[in-house]
Amino acid sequence: MVQFRIEKDFLGEKQLPLEAYYGINTVRAVENFPISGVPIHSELITALAEVKKAAAIANMELGWLPKRIGNAISEAADEIIEGNLRSEFIVDSIQGGAGTSINMNMNEVLANRALELMGQQKGEYFHCSPNNHVNMSQSTNDAIPTAIRIASFRLTQDLLQVFRTLVTGIRAKAEEFDDVIKMGRTHLQDAVPIRLGQEFGAYANVLERDIARIERAAQGLLVVNMGATAVGTGLNATPDYMRGVVQHLNELTGFSLRQADDLVDATQNTDAYMELSAALKVCAVNISKMCNDIRLMASGPRAGLGELNVPPRQPGSSIMPGKVNPVMAEVMNQIAFQVIGNDHTICLACEAGQFELNVMVPVAANNLMHSLKILKNGMDVFYKNLMIDLKANRESCKYYVDNSYGIITALNPHLGYDVASRLVKEAQQTGQGIREIILEKGLLTEEQINVILDPYHMTSPGIAGEEFLLNQ
Amino acid sequence: MVQFRIEKDFLGEKQLPLEAYYGINTVRAVENFPISGVPIHSELITALAEVKKAAAIANMELGWLPKRIGNAISEAADEIIEGNLRSEFIVDSIQGGAGTSINMNMNEVLANRALELMGQQKGEYFHCSPNNHVNMSQSTNDAIPTAIRIASFRLTQDLLQVFRTLVTGIRAKAEEFDDVIKMGRTHLQDAVPIRLGQEFGAYANVLERDIARIERAAQGLLVVNMGATAVGTGLNATPDYMRGVVQHLNELTGFSLRQADDLVDATQNTDAYMELSAALKVCAVNISKMCNDIRLMASGPRAGLGELNVPPRQPGSSIMPGKVNPVMAEVMNQIAFQVIGNDHTICLACEAGQFELNVMVPVAANNLMHSLKILKNGMDVFYKNLMIDLKANRESCKYYVDNSYGIITALNPHLGYDVASRLVKEAQQTGQGIREIILEKGLLTEEQINVILDPYHMTSPGIAGEEFLLNQ
Amino acid sequence: MVQFRIEKDFLGEKQLPLEAYYGINTVRAVENFPISGVPIHSELITALAEVKKAAAIANMELGWLPKRIGNAISEAADEIIEGNLRSEFIVDSIQGGAGTSINMNMNEVLANRALELMGQQKGEYFHCSPNNHVNMSQSTNDAIPTAIRIASFRLTQDLLQVFRTLVTGIRAKAEEFDDVIKMGRTHLQDAVPIRLGQEFGAYANVLERDIARIERAAQGLLVVNMGATAVGTGLNATPDYMRGVVQHLNELTGFSLRQADDLVDATQNTDAYMELSAALKVCAVNISKMCNDIRLMASGPRAGLGELNVPPRQPGSSIMPGKVNPVMAEVMNQIAFQVIGNDHTICLACEAGQFELNVMVPVAANNLMHSLKILKNGMDVFYKNLMIDLKANRESCKYYVDNSYGIITALNPHLGYDVASRLVKEAQQTGQGIREIILEKGLLTEEQINVILDPYHMTSPGIAGEEFLLNQ
Amino acid sequence: MVQFRIEKDFLGEKQLPLEAYYGINTVRAVENFPISGVPIHSELITALAEVKKAAAIANMELGWLPKRIGNAISEAADEIIEGNLRSEFIVDSIQGGAGTSINMNMNEVLANRALELMGQQKGEYFHCSPNNHVNMSQSTNDAIPTAIRIASFRLTQDLLQVFRTLVTGIRAKAEEFDDVIKMGRTHLQDAVPIRLGQEFGAYANVLERDIARIERAAQGLLVVNMGATAVGTGLNATPDYMRGVVQHLNELTGFSLRQADDLVDATQNTDAYMELSAALKVCAVNISKMCNDIRLMASGPRAGLGELNVPPRQPGSSIMPGKVNPVMAEVMNQIAFQVIGNDHTICLACEAGQFELNVMVPVAANNLMHSLKILKNGMDVFYKNLMIDLKANRESCKYYVDNSYGIITALNPHLGYDVASRLVKEAQQTGQGIREIILEKGLLTEEQINVILDPYHMTSPGIAGEEFLLNQ
Repeated sequence: MVQFRIEKDFLGEKQLPLEAYYGINTVRAVENFPISGVPIHSELITALAEVKKAAAIANMELGWLPKRIGNAISEAADEIIEGNLRSEFIVDSIQGGAGTSINMNMNEVLANRALELMGQQKGEYFHCSPNNHVNMSQSTNDAIPTAIRIASFRLTQDLLQVFRTLVTGIRAKAEEFDDVIKMGRTHLQDAVPIRLGQEFGAYANVLERDIARIERAAQGLLVVNMGATAVGTGLNATPDYMRGVVQHLNELTGFSLRQADDLVDATQNTDAYMELSAALKVCAVNISKMCNDIRLMASGPRAGLGELNVPPRQPGSSIMPGKVNPVMAEVMNQIAFQVIGNDHTICLACEAGQFELNVMVPVAANNLMHSLKILKNGMDVFYKNLMIDLKANRESCKYYVDNSYGIITALNPHLGYDVASRLVKEAQQTGQGIREIILEKGLLTEEQINVILDPYHMTSPGIAGEEFLLNQ
Repeated sequence: MVQFRIEKDFLGEKQLPLEAYYGINTVRAVENFPISGVPIHSELITALAEVKKAAAIANMELGWLPKRIGNAISEAADEIIEGNLRSEFIVDSIQGGAGTSINMNMNEVLANRALELMGQQKGEYFHCSPNNHVNMSQSTNDAIPTAIRIASFRLTQDLLQVFRTLVTGIRAKAEEFDDVIKMGRTHLQDAVPIRLGQEFGAYANVLERDIARIERAAQGLLVVNMGATAVGTGLNATPDYMRGVVQHLNELTGFSLRQADDLVDATQNTDAYMELSAALKVCAVNISKMCNDIRLMASGPRAGLGELNVPPRQPGSSIMPGKVNPVMAEVMNQIAFQVIGNDHTICLACEAGQFELNVMVPVAANNLMHSLKILKNGMDVFYKNLMIDLKANRESCKYYVDNSYGIITALNPHLGYDVASRLVKEAQQTGQGIREIILEKGLLTEEQINVILDPYHMTSPGIAGEEFLLNQ
Repeated sequence: MVQFRIEKDFLGEKQLPLEAYYGINTVRAVENFPISGVPIHSELITALAEVKKAAAIANMELGWLPKRIGNAISEAADEIIEGNLRSEFIVDSIQGGAGTSINMNMNEVLANRALELMGQQKGEYFHCSPNNHVNMSQSTNDAIPTAIRIASFRLTQDLLQVFRTLVTGIRAKAEEFDDVIKMGRTHLQDAVPIRLGQEFGAYANVLERDIARIERAAQGLLVVNMGATAVGTGLNATPDYMRGVVQHLNELTGFSLRQADDLVDATQNTDAYMELSAALKVCAVNISKMCNDIRLMASGPRAGLGELNVPPRQPGSSIMPGKVNPVMAEVMNQIAFQVIGNDHTICLACEAGQFELNVMVPVAANNLMHSLKILKNGMDVFYKNLMIDLKANRESCKYYVDNSYGIITALNPHLGYDVASRLVKEAQQTGQGIREIILEKGLLTEEQINVILDPYHMTSPGIAGEEFLLNQ
Repeated sequence: MVQFRIEKDFLGEKQLPLEAYYGINTVRAVENFPISGVPIHSELITALAEVKKAAAIANMELGWLPKRIGNAISEAADEIIEGNLRSEFIVDSIQGGAGTSINMNMNEVLANRALELMGQQKGEYFHCSPNNHVNMSQSTNDAIPTAIRIASFRLTQDLLQVFRTLVTGIRAKAEEFDDVIKMGRTHLQDAVPIRLGQEFGAYANVLERDIARIERAAQGLLVVNMGATAVGTGLNATPDYMRGVVQHLNELTGFSLRQADDLVDATQNTDAYMELSAALKVCAVNISKMCNDIRLMASGPRAGLGELNVPPRQPGSSIMPGKVNPVMAEVMNQIAFQVIGNDHTICLACEAGQFELNVMVPVAANNLMHSLKILKNGMDVFYKNLMIDLKANRESCKYYVDNSYGIITALNPHLGYDVASRLVKEAQQTGQGIREIILEKGLLTEEQINVILDPYHMTSPGIAGEEFLLNQ
């Protein structure tokens, strides 16, 4: 039979399972917010436990928090950081109240676990109180944003690591494909020759800028507002504490967090989340464009472009035998769309801040962390399941170059745009080759044509047959 | 010790836990898409099982599917519909491949459970094959969209039920507050008097239009493409089957599904999802506006407008004693932001369809179902935890009316806009009341003023003191 | 030398060019809002003049407005409706103040033109006042939303007319292309055969639903709030006036406008704009998808799919001779992106309404009318410059069908999915044809193969060679 | 009577007004794209003329372009840069073709004006050809992106200048309001005291980060792809030319443009536009939040918070006498919504790039430049018409502090959160003051209360009455 304890707050009292580490505030939150069914990101739990531990140590050092209590809190926090007690965090990831519910969920779990460690009963908050001891010198409004920043920064580092591997993989393809000449396309129409390796080099380069953008944006997360307390004025937090808590957080996390110069600003403004999310969105757009290209080049096998062969990962159809689809590219497109939509939610939430606090932060933070995770997970499998084994179909690529009129552009400096245009038209109408017509008309010699229309040379800067012009 | 069986497809073979009902396709999907960690919506699993059962029955009736196999599939589907075997659905909610992975996950679980029911070993697909028997006459491209539509329609009905209760609750407040006169505000500036009940009536009315929009949009979900198979041409599906499967689906679901007139259209286009999501988005905006108003009116208790008292649901702060926040309104704002962002993702996914199929449907469907669920859950608690016990602060409301110049507008027909403007200016500069000045200047008699400036009358159409004008 | 007159309001006075019909409020607005440089949509000017005329007539009929003044206002309004005096409307399309600036710009122009018609000097507002006479029984908050609705409804009708022509054009292509067999594609991979006409039929069908959605959404615009005055309570507007003004508006416009049942609701809520914009957005997505398909099918001429030939409209490149691009499809994509972005702006503006009024309406209305116009203009030229002369490339289409393995799916009912999969694999590895292998292995007779693998039959529902199965 | 000349291209011929400087390509574009009615941004015309001039000079220096022709082109370009010939640029700002139409419009105007300067007739392109001479060594695909970047960079500099002035103005208010104590608000509920100057300091700080973000993002615009020609391979452009043209562009513009390291990347990727637009979007959100706060604080005059007085800029209502609205803040909100929507359009356009080129760039560039301009224009008038003359209402601010329970938080370190909560509850129920109750209960001495509850001290970090705790 389940046994219960009673907890009270200024609104009344609630029954709690005796073994529960969470308390009355948590129960109220669960009643109020049965919204998404998705729990708080576990990385945020870890980061919040780090915040609580750092605060406890700082408060102990300054004599505000008795050592016995502070040490118990610190030990309890370590357990959570190591992954224990996770089932006690039961509030929904979408919640009203700017994070008070998850902050109190943490304060209560830590208090009760600390009580236990001190040999007390759960709920005996006189000995260790969620508000007075665990939350000492803090407010939801500094502890939660700081935890969000730590969790997001950590997730960003994870993302960047996977991202760098992916870019390395794309660069390897750029090298592998460097000698594959194919038709460049603009407007999906035949343009002029290019090398497949140049295309993959371009993908790698834009994604490298994305890495730089994300790295830069993540720096904004390192500015925290611990000590801001309720509205950024630092009420009930001493300057000594402020210094201490950030220093301890850096020791715990290994990051280079620093105190915001203006805590009022840092408490109400959410531009750091938006900046990072915007960088992820730009990256998502670039990823999506690359995946669109890959899917186009891999189209076929017979009724498409057939320039790339993606590694088969699963039967592509429940009805069409032998069909294989570029599922890894497709899933990246979908991840991109989710990240872009999430960015939208984040902006809406950030715009809705009022006065000293943005109370819509839970949904913003949740979407930001979600974006970071799915991008990371997606890049990881996209790299392993597609990029590594991607192959060029050299025959298709060559075939298109050999059959397209696009090479005509190289004749411009020699014949002029208008003459060249007429040659294309004549070729299209008669079915004759460009070369033939030029020779027939005596516009250029065969030797000249061979130089000017060499497709490989067209893939680098310069005027093919420059020497013929200068000799004129 | 875990024991294994081996399954093969045209790409190779995989080891599977002997007790697993899922098969090789599922395992490949799990390897390919460890993306979000969020499983497929359980409502979609149910709906897909219904689709499979309806198809099995239709195929049996037409003699394509042997009764023994068909009945076993049907029985297995019933088990899933009832909520069993759910842990066998292990593919991620974001996946490449337009739903082939979840379709095959279902086909495999049903085949293996049917085999078991027929006394065979799992994996003996000769007797009941995921592709040939369970998926008979179907493709991912008709089975999955149909299941999404059924699941979404069902979720929409759930939402509408909660929504109607909420609107009824708002209407009750409109009545309760019908005699509460307060200052109307435009531009957040004092305008002219209005009744609080009129404001809540307006909320109810716009939300009733949202209900109608959502109801109408949901109708689009009832058009299904069963029988379309791969690209909408109906290859491998007979007209008799098409009729049968929809009829059986209607029996199973109690809905009024109907076959699309143009299956090619119905297979490639996703406007039904967009239309419903757009209706949800418009609703989200209206909900958000109402919640913003409520939060403004409930602002205070001392340094805000204080026109409404929201029921206290939880201590609002971990640091500020006695603080209570309008958390239920805040969570609705956040839900609204999520729904709007989800709509964005859905549109991006829908725009990315190509030719005969939109392969981005998994992320679109996932977001649509997510929006439906969080709106429903949010409205439910918003109704129960806020609306029912919302109270008007009549004193505050009256105080603002008594102290504002906004009533001056009623003087326009009598004195003209310019004279009235000058009176306001004089009142502001001298601190005198409007009435006083009018009397002092002899512009109107006291009796006239009493009639014209009666705030209650100002809340209904008409020219106050019309009789004085007509007597002129 | 320019001569001036002086006008005054309760904030001070301003010099105006003697010949200006606009007045002091307009000048203040111009000073305040030099934002976009884009003037008010001319359709909105027309609609607002209609509103003013209808109000003047209604007020005259009820005896509130002297005939001499009312008739002059009405005559002045007619001039504007006919397209005169347009250079007097000088306020920016993005403006603070919920439309007061454009409303006063109109009130002032009408008052001054009416004064002129009555033989008075401009600025002699005692004889005809912008606020007391032209704006009689009105507020910005009812006149402007009503004008926006009339203008938007009219623009919607224009759009629908062009839209219907476009859909007719697409249907004509569906017929023209009905016998063009081509490979259907899912995931950009070869699927099963389809007819090009079926694809165009699908485009026509989804766009027809868009027409229905837009038509339905436009109905919401017909509900107006004339008589609501400042906050929807109808202060200073009599019920007789309310009836009269709407009746006169219907006579002037030929529309079926009706009074909102709840004027408070109709004054503060903007869901009608959002609903229409959402319908335009869904349409934009569908248009964009179709244009993407057309651009893909028209890709080439040599290094692309080459299934469609778009009519050449302009040289496609300043450097590449003879290049022609599908510019009409590209511009439709861009229009779609603008419409989707505009929808976003509209939602943000609509969410920002507070209490009795949404003061962000100018930017919402401006974006809505912009979307309506560019969609109409785009569809018009897309129809004329692309759709009418679009040609199928029958050889390419046939070539892909003849060379693809996609037809294998028709063998499923006969051989099963697994056997068929192995045949594809063998064909890919050996380069042999599917038919050859089947014959070689004695799986089917030549006669059977001819029936089952007939691609034309595959484009309609049914099991090819059903008779062979039933004979078994 | 209008006289005509005939021009030809490979698609046929067109009649042109004899005096027209534009040519056949322009006429085709006008026929194809009567979309928005909004012309190309004039800043883009200027920048493109600069590009053409720089290319002409570089080509002359290398001997590719005869001096006589090159000088004429250069002189013609100067005329356009100075603002002449602007009515010749008649193509729409939304256009298919990735900018070929505006590029050719420029090439034709320059060619014809150059012909005129050389004493030739317009249309005698043998002497100076739009394609061969004006467009020499260029493609639309390098000239247009380069011009967009120059124009956007220049607009960004204009924006930043205005932005810095605005932030300086906000900082001045932060100083002016530094001693105004008011209630801080979280969740729109009374929190703890803060100074109005702190709030304005926070606005200034977040906007300063926006300035930094915009500055940084603008750096990406300085990387240009001149010499990339059609697809980034540099076909028909020599390395010497590439160096020359960028150097001349820097001389003409005064900017520090540099050649992209990877021209293929720089030709197809549009992340620089997205990055800048994202920075503008984040800025727009921050601006909007600030304006929301200002409108809330300026709410009233009698039925609102009344903490700020915004300078009256125009009568706020056509019906409500004496009403003044915060129109300058409202217009900034609307600008923000437009910028956010524009960002959305830009992302959609950027995602739609394919292979070597993003053909959707016209709509992206148009929205980006639009955002830059309206933000600049809005900030300028927001500064001049609102910020400079914004006044604090010190009485209101003080009133709220004196009447709120929020100060109770300072008691936490002394009495604990739970006791303090009970005090608030008691005060609310009895109507007694907090001080009274504390004294009555003997919890603290009057001297202690005076120190602890001093609101001014609460606006800086620290524990009020720390000495009483340490003495314990």
